[in-house]
Amino acid sequence: MSDLWLSSLQTENPQQGFELALKLSRMGVKYTQPSDEVRSKLRDEYAENADSLTAASQVVAINFQTVAAANAYWK
Amino acid sequence: MSDLWLSSLQTENPQQGFELALKLSRMGVKYTQPSDEVRSKLRDEYAENADSLTAASQVVAINFQTVAAANAYWK
Amino acid sequence: MSDLWLSSLQTENPQQGFELALKLSRMGVKYTQPSDEVRSKLRDEYAENADSLTAASQVVAINFQTVAAANAYWK
Amino acid sequence: MSDLWLSSLQTENPQQGFELALKLSRMGVKYTQPSDEVRSKLRDEYAENADSLTAASQVVAINFQTVAAANAYWK
Amino acid sequence: MSDLWLSSLQTENPQQGFELALKLSRMGVKYTQPSDEVRSKLRDEYAENADSLTAASQVVAINFQTVAAANAYWK
Amino acid sequence: MSDLWLSSLQTENPQQGFELALKLSRMGVKYTQPSDEVRSKLRDEYAENADSLTAASQVVAINFQTVAAANAYWK
Repeated sequence: MSDLWLSSLQTENPQQGFELALKLSRMGVKYTQPSDEVRSKLRDEYAENADSLTAASQVVAINFQTVAAANAYWK
Repeated sequence: MSDLWLSSLQTENPQQGFELALKLSRMGVKYTQPSDEVRSKLRDEYAENADSLTAASQVVAINFQTVAAANAYWK
Repeated sequence: MSDLWLSSLQTENPQQGFELALKLSRMGVKYTQPSDEVRSKLRDEYAENADSLTAASQVVAINFQTVAAANAYWK
Repeated sequence: MSDLWLSSLQTENPQQGFELALKLSRMGVKYTQPSDEVRSKLRDEYAENADSLTAASQVVAINFQTVAAANAYWK
Repeated sequence: MSDLWLSSLQTENPQQGFELALKLSRMGVKYTQPSDEVRSKLRDEYAENADSLTAASQVVAINFQTVAAANAYWK
Repeated sequence: MSDLWLSSLQTENPQQGFELALKLSRMGVKYTQPSDEVRSKLRDEYAENADSLTAASQVVAINFQTVAAANAYWK
């Protein structure tokens, strides 16, 4: 991927950190499935499935661990 | 999401930390499925499925690791 | 949940820590499914399913990481 | 569980640590399904299923992280 | 595998670190399924499945934790 | 298991560390299913299944976290 989309793990506050974790989770998908059209179609499906949503939330949780550590937990 | 819902990872005690981990887990779902109505309907289903509940508990456990570290384990 | 059920992550020894990890795992379920009756019925099912038991053991393992770190590994 | 089965996370070497991680993984199951007979029957099944074995190995990996940290990686 | 493909976990910036995490995730697959042809065929399938993509993103997230720690979070 | 197969988590470089993580993942399976014949048969199956390969890669990623930490990330 030639675009720069991740220049730093530092964020101003925890909520921005959580949103960065969401972005990391989605980029993990995008590198495997680069088509915006396919990803959009798939999202419509899994956004109505409880287990798929829990799985998505889990990836965010793992990435949030990384972002939170990078920011010394915003203490 | 324009609302501020996460201003700090600090909590007064472990139980509030666990409840913050629950909130993080649910927000991980909400960012993907913003409709309160859809999430409510899905909850009715997965709350009666053992494997879905275990998966939900796992996401809470991962987020609790983050919150506990942020609070130096409330020592 | 208004009751106080988690006042500290400190335990006297590793085994008590493992049992606290079990409690955290079960509370992660209870917050989503508060009905004792429903949880009891579900437990009868998943306790006879190998993959469900492995998944439950995994949540305990994740929570045990947190409790063990909180206790400096009881060294 | 009234028996003492986990008095320390310290082991003499990494291999004993890995075997302790196995024990922790099995105890995570045993607390939920205490019947030796049921667990033995279930083991016969999942030991012939690749995905079940991978899932079991994952729980061991998570517990091994804890044991390895407790032993400062046997350095 | 006789080729040298991983000489360092150090990267110049977070994005290169994320891409290294992707490489680690794919190598974890390649060691088990060395055939480029089989892996290519399988990729066509799972790249159209939302749950498979989430699972792939999760492995990247776990490897990114390692790479980020190795780089002191590029602070 | 009476053989000594894990005497140290130290490796000379990250690639050897990744290969040790692979070994740990396979040993996690072998302790549950000791039969070489059964494991070989199962491998033929899951090596052709994308989700099984992703799951295997995830276990390697978790074990690689441990090995990388043990080697201070080969810095």
